[in-house]
Amino acid sequence: MQSAYDTLATEGAQLAFGFWRLAVLDRLERQLDAQLPCVSTPPIRLHEAMRYAVLGGGKRLRPLLCQASGVALGADRQVLDTVGAAVEMVHVNSLVYDDLPAMDDDSLRHGRPSVHIQFDEATAILTGSALLMQAFMTLRHAPVSCARQVLLMEELARAAGPDGLCGGQMFDLDSLGTVIDIPALNLMHRMKTGALIRAAVRMGALCAEPVDADLDALDRYAAAVGLAFQIVDDILDATQDSATLGKTAGKDAQDHKPTYVSVFGLEPSRRLAWQLNEQAHAALTCFGARAFYLRELADLIVKRLH
Amino acid sequence: MQSAYDTLATEGAQLAFGFWRLAVLDRLERQLDAQLPCVSTPPIRLHEAMRYAVLGGGKRLRPLLCQASGVALGADRQVLDTVGAAVEMVHVNSLVYDDLPAMDDDSLRHGRPSVHIQFDEATAILTGSALLMQAFMTLRHAPVSCARQVLLMEELARAAGPDGLCGGQMFDLDSLGTVIDIPALNLMHRMKTGALIRAAVRMGALCAEPVDADLDALDRYAAAVGLAFQIVDDILDATQDSATLGKTAGKDAQDHKPTYVSVFGLEPSRRLAWQLNEQAHAALTCFGARAFYLRELADLIVKRLH
Repeated sequence: MQSAYDTLATEGAQLAFGFWRLAVLDRLERQLDAQLPCVSTPPIRLHEAMRYAVLGGGKRLRPLLCQASGVALGADRQVLDTVGAAVEMVHVNSLVYDDLPAMDDDSLRHGRPSVHIQFDEATAILTGSALLMQAFMTLRHAPVSCARQVLLMEELARAAGPDGLCGGQMFDLDSLGTVIDIPALNLMHRMKTGALIRAAVRMGALCAEPVDADLDALDRYAAAVGLAFQIVDDILDATQDSATLGKTAGKDAQDHKPTYVSVFGLEPSRRLAWQLNEQAHAALTCFGARAFYLRELADLIVKRLH
Repeated sequence: MQSAYDTLATEGAQLAFGFWRLAVLDRLERQLDAQLPCVSTPPIRLHEAMRYAVLGGGKRLRPLLCQASGVALGADRQVLDTVGAAVEMVHVNSLVYDDLPAMDDDSLRHGRPSVHIQFDEATAILTGSALLMQAFMTLRHAPVSCARQVLLMEELARAAGPDGLCGGQMFDLDSLGTVIDIPALNLMHRMKTGALIRAAVRMGALCAEPVDADLDALDRYAAAVGLAFQIVDDILDATQDSATLGKTAGKDAQDHKPTYVSVFGLEPSRRLAWQLNEQAHAALTCFGARAFYLRELADLIVKRLH
């Protein structure tokens, strides 16, 4: 049974995490604003679309993971702010492309019209590429050595390329209307969502001086939260309405897309998400109290289920 | 009047350039093949589309410029091969996107169906992003210091981003059916074609140890050949048939796209191309005989007019 002191400690921790999260999100928004091209310089339409796509909200999970991982390893906050912004730009590129008519054909994102609806399809395609390139320009501005910048760029390129985001999205499209087995579903999501989540966590650590054991532990953590995140996403898509999600709900079933819910069922999917949460916590043991924010973020992901 | 010796020397130079070019193209093809993901590993469709897009031919002007500039500065050939392959991947990304229905809607490229015709639109969009990321992974494999790799990545990201390719293509789309003035036409092409040509030339030099004066001279050269290339392209689009071009001819006029031919007329455009050729040669004076291949490439661009 929890004592009054335990309850106070838990509430205090929640408060500390809440404040940290708000501070990170605030710094991120300012960093993104500073790194994105100005709308007063041409081509104005492209710059407007880039800003619309990036500054339009979102959970900012990847920059938060990047920051939390950096804090665990003692990285500089200014470096983490810059690196987190770069990771978010790549993530937004994938959202803009996912929503295109040729892909998931979704007209709603973060409760607002998707980029290709608000602007047009050509602008959305150019916006995606421009964001990818701006992410690399942003990493070039990170106040670390060239050797470190190039490691960060490599992580990002690998996560966004054919072995990551692009490959995962290709698997996703190939899987529409088909029955796929659990290993194939896991591989698809390891590439589609997992790769960039892993990169965000690793890049946060690379802003400090991680040893191999640190990166191995963080890889295990990232694999668990990445998969948990996707499972929770599938559960929410099947159980929530569009207004709550800020995007079109029930699209997975409508598109005959294989999901954890369609393969495992709803309750087993919930249990799996909680098991992965435990695995994420187990991976962090070696970091002790320094991994506080990483633990809170792992919990935040599964708490969306309530 | 040319003596028999002059004629022999000219013919010898032509032969030397021809052999060099074939050797570069052969090494490039092997380098691209080595750097692109295997079709035997999944997602097979994506890897097939990447290879179809890149290995399907093309003039390979940018890798040739990169090599020629590197030779002028004494760079290592193996480094230049790797860097040239990265530049070509970014160029192919822009071709794949230009051909999309939402952009120029062209079904023919290098005499074969465009990527979105041969595969589908979603695959073409993913192929473009995957090629961008593979270009950065390729630069990471260049046998140079991390400090040099990061400079190369920065050049490439800037050339492909909102200040380069993406921005230029946005201007291009905005200009359809409108009347634009000469400064606007120049700006559009400086971004759309010029930026990556400039990056190719500069990146070749950055494989050696260029001083600022070298890069300034190469920038002037690249600005002249970049614009000349575009003007020649516009002239050919207006005067040649699809079979000769390997892409749909007469599309510019059909799309009411402002071109050098539509703004200046055919003969003034031809004269302008030759003037730019002279400017390109003038920029190379400081390099003496070392700029032989750069000179030949400048000539090759305008010789397409015959």
